[in-house]
Amino acid sequence: MTTLNDRLAWRYATKKFDPTKTVPADKLERIIEAIRLAPTSSGLQPFELFVVTNPEVREKIRTVAWNQAQVTDSSHLLVFAAWDDITEERVNMMFDLTNDVRGFVNEGWENYRKMLLGIVAERGTEANYQAAARQAYIGLGAALIAAAFEEVDATPMEGFDPAAVDEILGLKEKHLRSVIILPVGYRAEEGDWLVNLKKVRRSRENFVTEIK
Amino acid sequence: MTTLNDRLAWRYATKKFDPTKTVPADKLERIIEAIRLAPTSSGLQPFELFVVTNPEVREKIRTVAWNQAQVTDSSHLLVFAAWDDITEERVNMMFDLTNDVRGFVNEGWENYRKMLLGIVAERGTEANYQAAARQAYIGLGAALIAAAFEEVDATPMEGFDPAAVDEILGLKEKHLRSVIILPVGYRAEEGDWLVNLKKVRRSRENFVTEIK
Repeated sequence: MTTLNDRLAWRYATKKFDPTKTVPADKLERIIEAIRLAPTSSGLQPFELFVVTNPEVREKIRTVAWNQAQVTDSSHLLVFAAWDDITEERVNMMFDLTNDVRGFVNEGWENYRKMLLGIVAERGTEANYQAAARQAYIGLGAALIAAAFEEVDATPMEGFDPAAVDEILGLKEKHLRSVIILPVGYRAEEGDWLVNLKKVRRSRENFVTEIK
Repeated sequence: MTTLNDRLAWRYATKKFDPTKTVPADKLERIIEAIRLAPTSSGLQPFELFVVTNPEVREKIRTVAWNQAQVTDSSHLLVFAAWDDITEERVNMMFDLTNDVRGFVNEGWENYRKMLLGIVAERGTEANYQAAARQAYIGLGAALIAAAFEEVDATPMEGFDPAAVDEILGLKEKHLRSVIILPVGYRAEEGDWLVNLKKVRRSRENFVTEIK
């Protein structure tokens, strides 16, 4: 059986995609579902996912992403957009949804709602956005692993102008801010400088400390 | 075959661990390895992992984590600690490691190093820390999925006083800041209020926007 760590070892940040290859719909859906199922702090899911295939929109994004070819040459461009603030309305939306799905109102859960509303009100917009952005990275982690399980290549990219991408995708009006973009697709057969280079990670002893 | 999304559906934020059950060493190592293999921006891996089993240290952490029992009742407590800054020394450490592992120096990569050194110097300590903390959440995502594949329960927790945990673990002297803690172990057979409740996620249509 293929293990998770085999898949993590297989994946790499693809530098050159084959623009003629498309990720099949069922594979793409399983990647999206992994992102949707990823856990988040207090269950808020404080981000949304944009799946961009439109060529003109992708060309525009490429111009504000250091002209990196993966933006247009990949099969699909995923954009993770975090809530620009964790508002009372948004917290209530998720807590109300939880009550709806579970079919009952729980006192402990309602007390937790009140406490959380107090925390996000006091913390302020920028800190709330930062907290939301971190949660999007859990979704990113899930997406990268899901793509690897589907034998789909994926390249997480922070090298873009978030304000410009927000403008292109109309995110400001939705009170969202782009955090990371993830082209997914298939590596080109030739011309990727990274594909054959060794993966580099710090050794376990330089990364892990055991406190026994 | 068990799929990734089956494992994501299986997992939940365990509220009550069985304190008598220990995660076997081979399973724990595979979870640690998934975190170590997780990709990060520019390959920096700007965080470290602490694996805490010492009971006194865990008791201390519990007192600054709202007295949540998972901190002491789980098998192992993982602490993700991000770099408090992305310094020139740290960037050079990772770029030098890359050259060592790959056995050559590449002009493009050296130009990228210079550019990145300029970015982190200009961005400043707090923004660098925030960027590092986000990367730790990719590792968290990998850990959660790896644990689920090992049928090990795991509960991501942000509900603790980071400065106090930094003090307990001596992180400040290591120029690290605690970001998230993750108890791993096995759910108790009784007494977990969450275990039988439905998982709640926004629907695909409220989470995903396609731009075609």
